[in-house]
Amino acid sequence: MRARRIVSAGAALCLAAAAFPPVSRGAGAPLLGFSPESSEAQRSLESRFDGSLSADNLRAWHRRLAARPHPVGSPYGRENAEFLLGLFRSWGYDARIEQFDVLFPTPRTRVLEMTAPTRFKASLAEPKLAEDATSGQSAEQLPVYHAYSIDGDVEGELVYVNYGVPADYEVLERYGVDVKGKIVLARYGGSWRGIKPKVAAEHGAVGCLIYSDPRDDGYFQGDVYPKGPWRMAQGAQRGSVADMPLFPGDPLTPGVAATKDARRLDRKDAPTLTRIPVMPISYADAQPLLAALGGKVVPEAWRGALPLTYHFGPGPARVHLKLEFDWKLAPALDVIAVMKGSERPDEWVIRGNHHDAWVNGAQDPVSGAVAVLEEARVVAELAKAGARPRRTIVYALWDAEEPGLLGSTEWAEAHAEELRRKAVAYVNSDSNARGFLSAGGSMTLEPFLDEVAQAVVDPQTRASVKDRLRARQQITGSPEEAKEVREQGTLRLAALGSGSDYTPFLQHLGIASLDIGFGGEDGGGSYHSIFDSVDHYTRFLDPTFEYGLALAKVGGRVVLRLANAEVLPFDPVPIADRTARFAQEVQKLADDLRAQTEEHNRKVREGLFAIADDPRLALAAPKPRDPVPFVNFAPLQNAVARMQRSAAEYSKSQTTLPPAARDARNAALIALERKLTRAEGLPGRPWFTHQVYAPGFYTGYGVKTLPAVREALEQRQWEQAARQVEAVAQTLDAFSAEVERLAGQPGESPAAP
Amino acid sequence: MRARRIVSAGAALCLAAAAFPPVSRGAGAPLLGFSPESSEAQRSLESRFDGSLSADNLRAWHRRLAARPHPVGSPYGRENAEFLLGLFRSWGYDARIEQFDVLFPTPRTRVLEMTAPTRFKASLAEPKLAEDATSGQSAEQLPVYHAYSIDGDVEGELVYVNYGVPADYEVLERYGVDVKGKIVLARYGGSWRGIKPKVAAEHGAVGCLIYSDPRDDGYFQGDVYPKGPWRMAQGAQRGSVADMPLFPGDPLTPGVAATKDARRLDRKDAPTLTRIPVMPISYADAQPLLAALGGKVVPEAWRGALPLTYHFGPGPARVHLKLEFDWKLAPALDVIAVMKGSERPDEWVIRGNHHDAWVNGAQDPVSGAVAVLEEARVVAELAKAGARPRRTIVYALWDAEEPGLLGSTEWAEAHAEELRRKAVAYVNSDSNARGFLSAGGSMTLEPFLDEVAQAVVDPQTRASVKDRLRARQQITGSPEEAKEVREQGTLRLAALGSGSDYTPFLQHLGIASLDIGFGGEDGGGSYHSIFDSVDHYTRFLDPTFEYGLALAKVGGRVVLRLANAEVLPFDPVPIADRTARFAQEVQKLADDLRAQTEEHNRKVREGLFAIADDPRLALAAPKPRDPVPFVNFAPLQNAVARMQRSAAEYSKSQTTLPPAARDARNAALIALERKLTRAEGLPGRPWFTHQVYAPGFYTGYGVKTLPAVREALEQRQWEQAARQVEAVAQTLDAFSAEVERLAGQPGESPAAP
Repeated sequence: MRARRIVSAGAALCLAAAAFPPVSRGAGAPLLGFSPESSEAQRSLESRFDGSLSADNLRAWHRRLAARPHPVGSPYGRENAEFLLGLFRSWGYDARIEQFDVLFPTPRTRVLEMTAPTRFKASLAEPKLAEDATSGQSAEQLPVYHAYSIDGDVEGELVYVNYGVPADYEVLERYGVDVKGKIVLARYGGSWRGIKPKVAAEHGAVGCLIYSDPRDDGYFQGDVYPKGPWRMAQGAQRGSVADMPLFPGDPLTPGVAATKDARRLDRKDAPTLTRIPVMPISYADAQPLLAALGGKVVPEAWRGALPLTYHFGPGPARVHLKLEFDWKLAPALDVIAVMKGSERPDEWVIRGNHHDAWVNGAQDPVSGAVAVLEEARVVAELAKAGARPRRTIVYALWDAEEPGLLGSTEWAEAHAEELRRKAVAYVNSDSNARGFLSAGGSMTLEPFLDEVAQAVVDPQTRASVKDRLRARQQITGSPEEAKEVREQGTLRLAALGSGSDYTPFLQHLGIASLDIGFGGEDGGGSYHSIFDSVDHYTRFLDPTFEYGLALAKVGGRVVLRLANAEVLPFDPVPIADRTARFAQEVQKLADDLRAQTEEHNRKVREGLFAIADDPRLALAAPKPRDPVPFVNFAPLQNAVARMQRSAAEYSKSQTTLPPAARDARNAALIALERKLTRAEGLPGRPWFTHQVYAPGFYTGYGVKTLPAVREALEQRQWEQAARQVEAVAQTLDAFSAEVERLAGQPGESPAAP
Repeated sequence: MRARRIVSAGAALCLAAAAFPPVSRGAGAPLLGFSPESSEAQRSLESRFDGSLSADNLRAWHRRLAARPHPVGSPYGRENAEFLLGLFRSWGYDARIEQFDVLFPTPRTRVLEMTAPTRFKASLAEPKLAEDATSGQSAEQLPVYHAYSIDGDVEGELVYVNYGVPADYEVLERYGVDVKGKIVLARYGGSWRGIKPKVAAEHGAVGCLIYSDPRDDGYFQGDVYPKGPWRMAQGAQRGSVADMPLFPGDPLTPGVAATKDARRLDRKDAPTLTRIPVMPISYADAQPLLAALGGKVVPEAWRGALPLTYHFGPGPARVHLKLEFDWKLAPALDVIAVMKGSERPDEWVIRGNHHDAWVNGAQDPVSGAVAVLEEARVVAELAKAGARPRRTIVYALWDAEEPGLLGSTEWAEAHAEELRRKAVAYVNSDSNARGFLSAGGSMTLEPFLDEVAQAVVDPQTRASVKDRLRARQQITGSPEEAKEVREQGTLRLAALGSGSDYTPFLQHLGIASLDIGFGGEDGGGSYHSIFDSVDHYTRFLDPTFEYGLALAKVGGRVVLRLANAEVLPFDPVPIADRTARFAQEVQKLADDLRAQTEEHNRKVREGLFAIADDPRLALAAPKPRDPVPFVNFAPLQNAVARMQRSAAEYSKSQTTLPPAARDARNAALIALERKLTRAEGLPGRPWFTHQVYAPGFYTGYGVKTLPAVREALEQRQWEQAARQVEAVAQTLDAFSAEVERLAGQPGESPAAP
């Protein structure tokens, strides 16, 4: 379900000052974690790997898997799972389907009508198109709806709330618009969709509609389907609205696997279901509602691309929203395929992509899944030819990702203990398309991923995918960004929030993770619609499947190098440097909040708003804000300084390890990411244990780094912020202590006596 | 014709570092240029002035003057001129009409039709509305057209060129779109309208259409007429497209008055007429054309608010444009009313506003004109009651401003020699509406205008109009801007470009000028349309005429203080400090251009564009740019340093002058602005003599400070820039020498021996 990559690839890059020197490794230099000899063998293996890849396979599987709608619990979803199982077994994997029984509501009743000032009944339907062969499979298509909306039958005045994020409600308050007892109309964008009904309910709304404005996702962006790739007027975006920043996975079994006999919450006690009914609509359905709104004209940043003047309401438009769901359990069928390692069978490299889709899912997830399949096929072929990986490789094709990462989360919860012992890393992909490499994940793997990206050639330009991304960042970035990219020779990994299956591994279990894919060069107007079809994908997004092959090459290198490396290529330097940067950011956040608060309070005190405001708008006078105290950041500053010192020492100590020491070193490196977690988790959401990366509580997908501190500050909880500074510092100190231990291990340092 | 004040008032403010200390003058402190005693008398006079103002007069004259269409040469225009003459005479002014005979083409034939891929004939008409009483006066309305477009009959493929400014053609080149032989469709905005056909012709286009996109001027901004004030779908913007940055006024008589017997250019030699036919259209007429364009999708910044995907073209849309004009001379009737000064009759304070309109002109210009009338009425009333001004006051209600400042320019050219001797200052207004004070002009008058703005109360908030503007700037500005406004206690005057009748006075003759008005709180969708009507104005823009009274209070104070001051309130400190700032800006411009050029050339050299660009878009590879040499700015730096030194010395030398010295001082101060001009004028446009302020050659209205240097840099004419640095420095040195002379005059300095 990863949101479309409609932003330029540059936006995914987290720019940071280059505190550690760029890796400048020649083409012949040994690979990270490999000796010169084994490096040569590995490169030769990868060359054979590339030579065996076939775009025809991707094309055939793509057509097969996306031929019919296949959400979790559907007949074709089961057929796909069995088809995948058969493929893996045919290649020699030890493969199985693991089933979990998860809450998966589907609609029984969907009614949306405007009752005043005129009557209008929303169609809530995407049309069949002659140009799209699968668009007419209506019997199998899930209708347009939001999974985990509660049932509801509400009527009320309508209020337009822009993106429906907390800052929008500050604007509403200033304009004197209260959503209490009203139904809000929010547009997609600005946050993950599940945030919108959550924030609306916090403000007293009784219902929520979410539409795709053509400004963000329609004709403003480009030609609409079928002429171009963008969302057409009747297209709508399905999706989950569970409160995933609390925890993802089955809403009834938080923290434990949704096995047949698991203890399940009562549905009324399930905390991630919405508090109010919510439904997605198309811009064709939204336009009459917006046109009927009165009240003041919204600020410029709130206006979309419909041919009308956007007003807040409330009213005179009134709407009636009625939703009833079939609250059944559905079987989530994870396809798990294992190739046991020849030397280190209890060290697992896990590679995953989901297989379920909202409808046909040609892009999301099939475009990523077929690249993983081809990667797995060739890995097996090479193994059969004698190049069995040293470590175990686990391929996982997840079910039920779309409603909220259910397949991966339940599996991770089911195998938590074993995974904490054995998982080297989890490598995720999801959708894929023509364009630029996008890579995020554990910063300890940043130099490793940089090396991989240098080795894979972009199909369109024949530059390396690394160079292409860096060129793009320099062309589209600000002068300062371009300079930083130029001076920083290596790729930067983006910090991960949520939105795909890495979350349970990285943020719940503390397993080093990567998320990889290509995209950013074409429009994404098919996301979670019936038009995410083979026709759409092969016309617009990757007609030749060259970028599918590029993903297989990146994924294959990542997996095979992690599986075969003598010493695992985890590096504590980049995580130390990036954490230092994140720490600077949260300190700056506190300082900025203080300055803004003082400035705001000065303006209130001096009555400037009352003088400057347009009297005709009758704006509410802003209230003074609580002053921002100085928070003691010293524990965090000391902790990051120690991280950087220990990482530097570790770097200095690196040399060829004797085989005996190597095993211990690898075991320690496998466990290293776990040192960045706390068993207590984040404040108010214990499922999320990672202290460096988490999805934002009010962004949903968007990452918050050092989330415990950052979100306390953003929510103006000053004492909480101070407490969390201490807790995060303790966590980082534990990481540093482990790095110091590794740096000081006898016999490893060239300078040792 | 001043463009609508739709930007926030803050945008008009030129923020600059506070290099001279804020004036902090108590309410009882003497007025600038007045002794304590005369100050008290002046304040009492102003209090009587305020007490005599009547909104009813404004309302009655507004209804009278805007009752029928009254462009230059029209019957009602003549009626208005005679009505104004009668008013002035009835109040005791020595009033006359001065006539000039100016080229004023009006349309005979207007045809715009799309000939492919489908046929569509543009309506080119604004509809009569029941809600607007004068909208049906079609017999007297000038149709939708652009004055000084040449005749033409052209057909060709259509190309969308965004705002049609030079930067847009760089984008077109990158996308491989050539306008040669094509007809361009530009949207209003981004420059003065006359720039668009000029730049289009420079690039080989054969015709030009300019439409109002609803993004900038229609439903995106707010509710459209008659529901709200904004431009409705069929509304279109008339206007002049003469090449006014070359020279304004009658195209046939550059530099000399268009008297009956003046030598006139042949029309074919008139350099300010367009090179290609051009016509304005509504967004209702533009939409089918834009919808029919093919080619690549335009960049995001080019997209408007019509419900379609914007493409470049060229074609498949083809259009046929045919225009024929009646190239007649029309009588421009300036109404000039003089009240001779009691003590200094040869020192003139000139106060002007135009009276001609494109159609009914309720806002533009009648809203400003009625405030000037009421000001003049009360000035005369006070004079009759014994308070005759010490200096002569000249009220000027200009004709033919709309086609290009013709009435004021011809008058200024006719009386150039006398004006250079006698004019103390020219004070302009134009349109007026509810909102914030907007003031621009000669920086030597900045402290004076600040003092006036402190004394006038905002009708809605009862704060001073100065405090209201400063509050607005602090609320809407960036934190840095807010801080600067807070620390700078005084108002800043905006530097003046063009767009209203101050241009011939300030930039041709070098007469200190001010431009004042209120606005910024309501939509401006009636600009140059038949809906700039009494109904529109009194529903939306200033229903009670309170802001008309506020303008009369500001204008009245400015005029009466300038007329009565013992020492004229010109101050060399602010112009010195602001010029220093402008000099820093042009140096920074050179440095920025150099850095950008180096960065651009590096990207070209390293082939980054080729790697980063989307191959499907087939973009043209950008060319390397000529390197930016270091220009010797030392002469300019020395000149501004001397300006600041001399101004500081002058400030220190200020004390009460003996009466004999006072006259000489005033004579010198009257002439001071002329020291900022050069007889040779600006490069390529000798009519513009002022070396500190000019309208941009490629902006039209937008100001360029230190234009000779700044525009040479912008146009990458490095040697020209170096030459102009010398020329400007010489001009500034002459100014400084005069200030030094005044500072050193014997008997004036308290420290003199």
